[in-house]
Amino acid sequence: MNAVVPTVTFADIEAAAVRIAGQAIETPLIESPALNERVGLRVLIKAETLQRVGAFKFRGAYNRLVQLSDEERARGVVAFSSGNHAQGVALAAKLLGIPAVIVMPDDAPGVKVEATKGYGADVRFYNRLAGKTREAIAAEIAAEREAVVVPAFDDPHIVAGQGTVGLEMVRQAQAIGAKLDVVAAPISGGGLLAGIATAAKALSPETAVVGVEPAAFDDTLQSLRKGERVTIKPQGRSYCDALESPFPGEITFPIMHRMVADVATVTDAEVAEAMRVAFSTLKLVVEPGGAAALAALLAGKVQMFGGHTVGIVLSGGNVDPEFFANVLRGKA
Amino acid sequence: MNAVVPTVTFADIEAAAVRIAGQAIETPLIESPALNERVGLRVLIKAETLQRVGAFKFRGAYNRLVQLSDEERARGVVAFSSGNHAQGVALAAKLLGIPAVIVMPDDAPGVKVEATKGYGADVRFYNRLAGKTREAIAAEIAAEREAVVVPAFDDPHIVAGQGTVGLEMVRQAQAIGAKLDVVAAPISGGGLLAGIATAAKALSPETAVVGVEPAAFDDTLQSLRKGERVTIKPQGRSYCDALESPFPGEITFPIMHRMVADVATVTDAEVAEAMRVAFSTLKLVVEPGGAAALAALLAGKVQMFGGHTVGIVLSGGNVDPEFFANVLRGKA
Repeated sequence: MNAVVPTVTFADIEAAAVRIAGQAIETPLIESPALNERVGLRVLIKAETLQRVGAFKFRGAYNRLVQLSDEERARGVVAFSSGNHAQGVALAAKLLGIPAVIVMPDDAPGVKVEATKGYGADVRFYNRLAGKTREAIAAEIAAEREAVVVPAFDDPHIVAGQGTVGLEMVRQAQAIGAKLDVVAAPISGGGLLAGIATAAKALSPETAVVGVEPAAFDDTLQSLRKGERVTIKPQGRSYCDALESPFPGEITFPIMHRMVADVATVTDAEVAEAMRVAFSTLKLVVEPGGAAALAALLAGKVQMFGGHTVGIVLSGGNVDPEFFANVLRGKA
Repeated sequence: MNAVVPTVTFADIEAAAVRIAGQAIETPLIESPALNERVGLRVLIKAETLQRVGAFKFRGAYNRLVQLSDEERARGVVAFSSGNHAQGVALAAKLLGIPAVIVMPDDAPGVKVEATKGYGADVRFYNRLAGKTREAIAAEIAAEREAVVVPAFDDPHIVAGQGTVGLEMVRQAQAIGAKLDVVAAPISGGGLLAGIATAAKALSPETAVVGVEPAAFDDTLQSLRKGERVTIKPQGRSYCDALESPFPGEITFPIMHRMVADVATVTDAEVAEAMRVAFSTLKLVVEPGGAAALAALLAGKVQMFGGHTVGIVLSGGNVDPEFFANVLRGKA
């Protein structure tokens, strides 16, 4: 018999919202008439780019770390991440006085590495292609120190923390008299989307939840089609460094399977165009992975199920200036 | 005896707020713990970059145009502007069904020209250095068509509209339990600052109002020192294309004279650095002129009068991608 996979309830998300209040930012839900006109829909933008550490990841990390016992806090935490979860854990650890070791790929964006170090974390690098996996390195460090490993997505407290994005979106939309027919958010391991789906389905059962992933990392789409978790063999990189998980999570997949209405995939070119539109029309700095849902919307790939109001999560804004400059100049 | 110069009251600003409600966006007041830490103050960012047309100018333009009579609307409006006022008037005119002719310098940023045309305005160019002044061209067109000239700043309805920025800032700060010790905003002709000062002094008399202008266009500073309006002879351009007025307004100057506590000046290098900080720390796209107050803050030039909470207006985000890319790469 398999071990029971924990799930996440709406009550968990409400509890997470209380825990992170005053620490995480209630990011604004932004509307741009110019964007509405361009896509012929009402678009409500959840700007998690304006969250602490520049991405939604702080929510889940803080919700996880604040629940550690004093003894666990003293031993510290270990996480592995290409960047945004790294920063989320590093900042949450700093705020709570917990030592943190973060294992990052040696080709992670410089801004993400620098920020993680800036929050005081002990950063260790690994090579994506050679030697031990990051999971193995993190497990080793954790064993040495008896430290707690903080997963990027496959943890109910992490999912519940990310779910507060959905909680806020639905309530902020209601506050301006809008009803979200569809909510679209990027998928890596599925923590954000599973959390948003759980919140949205509880507060607004008619809202359709749509995930977006890079075409080259369509593991969730494949998994949902097959009805079980699929691990893909990536054929290269994506602009979306934050969305390169090759499989959905053990906890996140069943939630997405129950609650996600559709998954769209986007190309690097569509992502770059979305970053340019966010720059010129929204005046927001968005990283590639953070722009995936907007990219799908602009490419006409977000299924609207007959509705006309869509919530789009811009999930992060941590992007190297040189790469961003290339995107603006049409060279990426 | 001189003609009486009209002034602007807080009641005018409250009335403007009612007129623009549902048309202008109530832009968010954003707080970044990372920026707070960097400057050692509590900083509340008024992101007018997220306003319609990407700048606060829509507020004043709409407040002016919506008060035109049916007859005036039919004859149309004329405005001259390097870009943001142009866009504000063009969009307000489009929304109200008013024909608009906009006179722009032929070296205005491409994004501003394109957007102004995009809102349906008839754009006419002039050369800054040769031939007729923009005032003369606009006056000619206005005379031909019996059209109403919509000034960029020297008009009580324009000032009242821009003042709604200050109204919102003070109320949004109060809503989160903060008291603004200082508010800093950029100065071109002074419409924004005079409006903000009028609102702030009415709602929060202890708040000190600080203006920021480019070092090469310090006409307001010189005017305040002298106690009368000074017209400067610019020795070149500034990165801040939106802040190149060589004199403060006839209406705006007396208001600033009464209410503004200090004026700081910033260099192009300080402005570029502020744009980079807005990109990396705030994840906001800010144009040079829009970043002037943040530049002064980062350079330690905003006098705090013993306080520790400062409101910073990011007044616009309309910037050519190529120039922005150069700023990011340290080449501007």
